[in-house]
Amino acid sequence: MPVVVRNIERADRAAIDGLAHAGVATVHEAQGRIGLLTHHMRPIYPGARIAGSAVTISAPPGDNWMVHVAIEQLKEGDILVLAPTSPCVDGYFGDLLATSAMAHGCRGLVIDAGVRDVRDLTQMGFPVWSKAVFAQGTVKATLGSVNVPVVCAGAAIEPGDVIVADDDGVCVVKRADAAAVLRKAQEREVAEEGKRKRLAAGELGLDIYDMRGKLEQMGLKYV
Amino acid sequence: MPVVVRNIERADRAAIDGLAHAGVATVHEAQGRIGLLTHHMRPIYPGARIAGSAVTISAPPGDNWMVHVAIEQLKEGDILVLAPTSPCVDGYFGDLLATSAMAHGCRGLVIDAGVRDVRDLTQMGFPVWSKAVFAQGTVKATLGSVNVPVVCAGAAIEPGDVIVADDDGVCVVKRADAAAVLRKAQEREVAEEGKRKRLAAGELGLDIYDMRGKLEQMGLKYV
Amino acid sequence: MPVVVRNIERADRAAIDGLAHAGVATVHEAQGRIGLLTHHMRPIYPGARIAGSAVTISAPPGDNWMVHVAIEQLKEGDILVLAPTSPCVDGYFGDLLATSAMAHGCRGLVIDAGVRDVRDLTQMGFPVWSKAVFAQGTVKATLGSVNVPVVCAGAAIEPGDVIVADDDGVCVVKRADAAAVLRKAQEREVAEEGKRKRLAAGELGLDIYDMRGKLEQMGLKYV
Amino acid sequence: MPVVVRNIERADRAAIDGLAHAGVATVHEAQGRIGLLTHHMRPIYPGARIAGSAVTISAPPGDNWMVHVAIEQLKEGDILVLAPTSPCVDGYFGDLLATSAMAHGCRGLVIDAGVRDVRDLTQMGFPVWSKAVFAQGTVKATLGSVNVPVVCAGAAIEPGDVIVADDDGVCVVKRADAAAVLRKAQEREVAEEGKRKRLAAGELGLDIYDMRGKLEQMGLKYV
Amino acid sequence: MPVVVRNIERADRAAIDGLAHAGVATVHEAQGRIGLLTHHMRPIYPGARIAGSAVTISAPPGDNWMVHVAIEQLKEGDILVLAPTSPCVDGYFGDLLATSAMAHGCRGLVIDAGVRDVRDLTQMGFPVWSKAVFAQGTVKATLGSVNVPVVCAGAAIEPGDVIVADDDGVCVVKRADAAAVLRKAQEREVAEEGKRKRLAAGELGLDIYDMRGKLEQMGLKYV
Amino acid sequence: MPVVVRNIERADRAAIDGLAHAGVATVHEAQGRIGLLTHHMRPIYPGARIAGSAVTISAPPGDNWMVHVAIEQLKEGDILVLAPTSPCVDGYFGDLLATSAMAHGCRGLVIDAGVRDVRDLTQMGFPVWSKAVFAQGTVKATLGSVNVPVVCAGAAIEPGDVIVADDDGVCVVKRADAAAVLRKAQEREVAEEGKRKRLAAGELGLDIYDMRGKLEQMGLKYV
Repeated sequence: MPVVVRNIERADRAAIDGLAHAGVATVHEAQGRIGLLTHHMRPIYPGARIAGSAVTISAPPGDNWMVHVAIEQLKEGDILVLAPTSPCVDGYFGDLLATSAMAHGCRGLVIDAGVRDVRDLTQMGFPVWSKAVFAQGTVKATLGSVNVPVVCAGAAIEPGDVIVADDDGVCVVKRADAAAVLRKAQEREVAEEGKRKRLAAGELGLDIYDMRGKLEQMGLKYV
Repeated sequence: MPVVVRNIERADRAAIDGLAHAGVATVHEAQGRIGLLTHHMRPIYPGARIAGSAVTISAPPGDNWMVHVAIEQLKEGDILVLAPTSPCVDGYFGDLLATSAMAHGCRGLVIDAGVRDVRDLTQMGFPVWSKAVFAQGTVKATLGSVNVPVVCAGAAIEPGDVIVADDDGVCVVKRADAAAVLRKAQEREVAEEGKRKRLAAGELGLDIYDMRGKLEQMGLKYV
Repeated sequence: MPVVVRNIERADRAAIDGLAHAGVATVHEAQGRIGLLTHHMRPIYPGARIAGSAVTISAPPGDNWMVHVAIEQLKEGDILVLAPTSPCVDGYFGDLLATSAMAHGCRGLVIDAGVRDVRDLTQMGFPVWSKAVFAQGTVKATLGSVNVPVVCAGAAIEPGDVIVADDDGVCVVKRADAAAVLRKAQEREVAEEGKRKRLAAGELGLDIYDMRGKLEQMGLKYV
Repeated sequence: MPVVVRNIERADRAAIDGLAHAGVATVHEAQGRIGLLTHHMRPIYPGARIAGSAVTISAPPGDNWMVHVAIEQLKEGDILVLAPTSPCVDGYFGDLLATSAMAHGCRGLVIDAGVRDVRDLTQMGFPVWSKAVFAQGTVKATLGSVNVPVVCAGAAIEPGDVIVADDDGVCVVKRADAAAVLRKAQEREVAEEGKRKRLAAGELGLDIYDMRGKLEQMGLKYV
Repeated sequence: MPVVVRNIERADRAAIDGLAHAGVATVHEAQGRIGLLTHHMRPIYPGARIAGSAVTISAPPGDNWMVHVAIEQLKEGDILVLAPTSPCVDGYFGDLLATSAMAHGCRGLVIDAGVRDVRDLTQMGFPVWSKAVFAQGTVKATLGSVNVPVVCAGAAIEPGDVIVADDDGVCVVKRADAAAVLRKAQEREVAEEGKRKRLAAGELGLDIYDMRGKLEQMGLKYV
Repeated sequence: MPVVVRNIERADRAAIDGLAHAGVATVHEAQGRIGLLTHHMRPIYPGARIAGSAVTISAPPGDNWMVHVAIEQLKEGDILVLAPTSPCVDGYFGDLLATSAMAHGCRGLVIDAGVRDVRDLTQMGFPVWSKAVFAQGTVKATLGSVNVPVVCAGAAIEPGDVIVADDDGVCVVKRADAAAVLRKAQEREVAEEGKRKRLAAGELGLDIYDMRGKLEQMGLKYV
């Protein structure tokens, strides 16, 4: 059963970069409020906003052997996505693995477990979204798989899906949907810009979105 | 039952601003160690220290309709306080709502749920204390209430109560107690200043507070 | 039973400072992947990296009396380690106690409970690793002990043991092992430097660590 | 500030007993989906279903002195409600206190903290809803208050309010609302009985509640 | 996007019943240690052991409308599987819905949220595995979907997959794998029977599984 | 470093059995309110009350190899105590291991991780106190140690220490203290018996323990 899938398809690079620019909240809305990883996935430092193709890792608890295997499968613009096979907070990943991943084009790591050497990772500019920061070391004793479908932090992710991550968390976009979601995200951004100006000028959402009638009809009372 | 209370009383502006200056820990002590919201309420960025009058929102889980309703009730210097009617981490609030709230004088948001667009909110200087950062979108389908008493993160809050928030968390001061609490807070600050100097000079709390006799009498042994 | 042990042995100062330089992850690995405190122990601000001798405090929940007692026992280069006798998140420690502890040579605080005045502590450069930030005040009513063995955040700590703390968390090194662990940590740092260069140049861990044969033998399939 | 309020008003005994019979879920619905304590409040044994008047206790963490004080204030049919002043799981209450409370007419305990001697309490038939089962002992060193308003497990409770508790958890009914809520609860029970029969016979909620048109209009597609 | 898929394929009834008999731990092992839902999924009463075909529900937080829709899609031997679109503990399901589901052949409910009326459900013999017991009522305001792929409590589940649930928790078996997994589960049960007898007679796993040589070779020391 | 200590000392059998009879809460109090394991350690079924000598296991996350090694070290009346080297909820232990452990005199298992086959374990009458019930299978790939000091669920435990466990949780008594703690526990039981009768007769703790003066002196007001 342990397997490494070598050739995975990836989404169009321009679409991926466009999704990075849109950011997690907009992308999540644009694709119908789906695809978010759980809110316990937090960045190790603020300010990063990236997107890339998922190279997935299914790894046993406390065993980071498959990370080495996965790094060989990276292409420029990829993001490593690690889902442990049972709940774990160990530090699978640190500055040496980040050095190696960066050398192979990796843009960041999404891991439903722990990470360590966060000071070094911050200085290297290698962003990580994780469940925990924990120095606990791991072994290299049991196989896992690379580039198989995983459930990571509550979201189903297939290799080659687009991962978008920023200060709001992490969102996955199905590879085949990348272009369409980008289009909707951009439409949303344009629409929001107009609303932002009106709201900044003091207009109320109640009026812009014409909510007063509906609220009254549903029974809201002002006293 | 869904209701919006339009005219609420607020505490004196100078008292509110004085409480902001004193900060959460001092205010909490000054009023007898009461009024703190649970420790899971964390700021989205460090350094903010605010106080304001609570405009409260009781909202269904995953439904931010009442935030739009509440914004119309804001006056200069208010703070939005949102308590979901059941545990929820969804992102009720983002940069558009913050734009609108700021345009109506709002100083910040305290929400026992999630918030999103935190990078934008940070850049806008709109502080939020929340239970989670989560991009999960919400609907506008079910009514709630505005300016009713709520329990938010373990604290009972009435509309018009003074909210104090900083890096230590969030504290509520009953509206009618604002001036008295401020007075005690200022006395406390003065008293602490003197102690701080003595402690910095190496004097021990054991001596300053005359604890040695009591400790010995209660049975503390030095070996 | 409440007792204060006045004279504790400490490790060699140079060894302690060397361990600080190595950092938590390296020290933890160097001593055989032991000694970590639980991952819920987080720094109140990023960037601090310290080591020092543990002055331990066993304190009742919500009672910080023993902190005053412990400060008298501090020597230059010590770190306060507080373990509550039952789970607690109250704010045992703030800027006044930090002022006092710093005046007595204390390098920081490790507390399996809450801390407050974190803005002041940050400005003072007094680092704290805690389970929570919480302004909740404490009483001075019940005795505890100082410089007795404690279990703090899952780790057994004896007075005089070396505490190492940085952005990755907190690790304890037995006093008697400090020099040996430092030696291994330094060897590890040297070895890692070489690997870091090879990895940065694009060499794979699979090759550097000669993993391919073992992976194949255990049944890993590439497809 | 520490105070014991001796004479509190209680709701009508028949209304209280009627609410016990209706149970938590029905009472919660009957009063408009309010009043529930958080879901971490669990019974120590299954099968109990009680209601009674709240005698409230605000107690410091790890200090059960006020329980003794509260027991003197009990009347036949009361329920003790303990809210610690900060998060705590210590075992404030065991078989001796239960013996004493039962001798004074107490029907049970609702505590947002820990309880111990649960085997004995089960054999005595003294029901407890708590956040934890934990043998951790407490001290008698710091005052609290009895029969003051508290927030217990997320719900605002005043002395004399009606507490309803069963396997579904705990709900509070404002004292003045007891009779009205009972009436609505009984109407709800009657209405549910009819629906239960139709549903048991295989009729669908979709038809009984006439939902199909609304669902279609909102855009639900069958494929 | 809200959709109800009416005709789903189900696994062979005999295979399903065989998997129920084998139980969660054996099925999980037989299919290669995959398919478990998170350990927070607990039964509302002990002793139930069931298997059935998943009728899946993707529902908004605090909104149980889609449960009514799903019940119409049930066939004899099915199990309802509800995954909220964001974390939620509300009580989506109680005795009326259970009455309706049972009338349509439902064997139980698996819900990554709350359930209520657990005393009634226990008496009816309708088993539920849930994240919480909570009486919190829900609304019927927003659409979701029925019989679409979901991630429930960390496991990817497709409609028609086989759900196995007992006191150990919940496991999912891909529909197409049901027969093969059953075969392996039965082989495992036979093999375990022999081992159980030898172990009961005092033979050691160290000898039965021939572990001594491997342990020694890896460096285990006896002192 | 991986080591098995073969000959450990155990406490006197009669003292151990006496401690079992006294139970967790009494033993914990008798030894000065120390020794409790965290409250997340819960029994898999109610009613068991045992004591025995600890045979300790330090095991990697998700790896139960050392359980087999430990079983060979069991003597009649022992209790297995497993502490994972990092947080883990996997099911290290099920009915086969219980069969083996029982054949070697084991009275139960205390594990700061998961357990499975709980229905079988219940029927066999093999009690377990654990952090989780979870069917997740484990591997046999990495060494650990047997009969070394561990920190299990927050308590420091040495091999041969006495473990007491019942419905209230788990407590450890230092081997050398067993007889003395038993004596104090028995004195406590005698003293409690007298108090229980007085309390059952309606006497108040306020009077039995003569608390009224102290309460008044500290400032408690009755209104």
